[in-house]
Amino acid sequence: MNVNYTELIKKIKGSSVPKPLSGTLSGHAAGEPFDKHVYNEIKKQLPKNTFRQYEYLNDLYSKNAKTIGFEARQALFNSPTVLFLLSRGKNATDKWSVENPFDEKQNDTADILVVKDNFYEIIDIKTRNLSKSAQAPNIISAYKLAQVCAKMLDNGAGDDSQFDNFTINYFEIDWELEKEKLICKDAHFVNLFKCNPDNLYINWAAAMQLQFHVCDLDQEFKGNMEDWAKAYLKHFVTQAKKRANDMIAKFVKPFEKYIN
Amino acid sequence: MNVNYTELIKKIKGSSVPKPLSGTLSGHAAGEPFDKHVYNEIKKQLPKNTFRQYEYLNDLYSKNAKTIGFEARQALFNSPTVLFLLSRGKNATDKWSVENPFDEKQNDTADILVVKDNFYEIIDIKTRNLSKSAQAPNIISAYKLAQVCAKMLDNGAGDDSQFDNFTINYFEIDWELEKEKLICKDAHFVNLFKCNPDNLYINWAAAMQLQFHVCDLDQEFKGNMEDWAKAYLKHFVTQAKKRANDMIAKFVKPFEKYIN
Repeated sequence: MNVNYTELIKKIKGSSVPKPLSGTLSGHAAGEPFDKHVYNEIKKQLPKNTFRQYEYLNDLYSKNAKTIGFEARQALFNSPTVLFLLSRGKNATDKWSVENPFDEKQNDTADILVVKDNFYEIIDIKTRNLSKSAQAPNIISAYKLAQVCAKMLDNGAGDDSQFDNFTINYFEIDWELEKEKLICKDAHFVNLFKCNPDNLYINWAAAMQLQFHVCDLDQEFKGNMEDWAKAYLKHFVTQAKKRANDMIAKFVKPFEKYIN
Repeated sequence: MNVNYTELIKKIKGSSVPKPLSGTLSGHAAGEPFDKHVYNEIKKQLPKNTFRQYEYLNDLYSKNAKTIGFEARQALFNSPTVLFLLSRGKNATDKWSVENPFDEKQNDTADILVVKDNFYEIIDIKTRNLSKSAQAPNIISAYKLAQVCAKMLDNGAGDDSQFDNFTINYFEIDWELEKEKLICKDAHFVNLFKCNPDNLYINWAAAMQLQFHVCDLDQEFKGNMEDWAKAYLKHFVTQAKKRANDMIAKFVKPFEKYIN
């Protein structure tokens, strides 16, 4: 990894951002200024390597302006896994041009992307209002992550490139409102591929999202990325089977007596 | 039904509300002023019978101030189905007092409640920005509705009271922004129990919500409430089985090869 998170936490902890003007301090809106703040601090560490996801795509396609169309642009990524995580859909990619670049998109995988020496560091920022006990936030689609793991295993056989060229990190900012400012009281960093996948909670009814507070995620997994991908897929399949069984028990059995 | 919806649509169509101050015109915030507008118009029709859901509960418990505690207050409802749809949880109901009444809650079933002659008319307001092609909104939890239908069938045997003492209606307002005002261009009314249940779409990954645009819902069901409850439960069970099978096909089968 290229970002120095210990340094980042030092810079962010105790810092403050103006309270957003738009009324409520609910999740997304309140966090946004901190997201920008973290982006600026990472950019200070790695000025040439720090991007928003859409900025990176615009940069990549601009530098290869002669490469036109979805498939040719897909080929600009040196990893099918990173391609899957970062690229936009066929239609949007076909339409891209220097005059018609991508804009920010709410469900992009990365809030921040650090690309250096062919290594992709995907960073997602989670902000948390300490004065509310909120439920764990959406992290990433459990299904999307299963597809990522399958792609890693499909493409990594024989060499290590698919396992060593990207990672997914989460950065949490715990803030409180004080005198019209949001003050960062604490900050936490975790690497998704260092947690024990068996502990990951999948909320099937909430768009199959993994949900956790970054500060609560263990970092106990001892294997490499290949081990993690296999362990995660095992967990995902077990949980999907369990959910299918639970659905029969909860949504079918109790109602069968009414329908004959 | 006690509300005259033909009259209501006449009053609402062409009317306008001020544009909400808080920035974006996204779903919930933009709709709110229209929700109040509809409430006021229904209250003109039925001044003594029109409530917000929390107002009705406050009114009912205040009029029966000697009835204290969850179970006794539950018994104030003359229908287990209406009770299930409208009452709050045990803890909140135990704590209720004239000094500590209920406040509005976002996931209450009814936006507006019209209660007359022991008949409960539950009304949910959906607002729609005509300049955006939005996906169909969340209507009600398909599971909650299955529980409602089961309760109707459990309690309705031998007399018709459970089938005839409530209904659920949806009212859609289609608006456009014109010169800092939201103008209602069209309005639509449907009764949930008059649609063909087989056409209802359940979004299992979105909190199992039924989703439809009010203006698109058919009103073709010819049977009574008992028939509807049975037909809905048949549809719900079929769909739950299908979803469980789909989960195995989509989330288990493709990944099994990686985990052995």
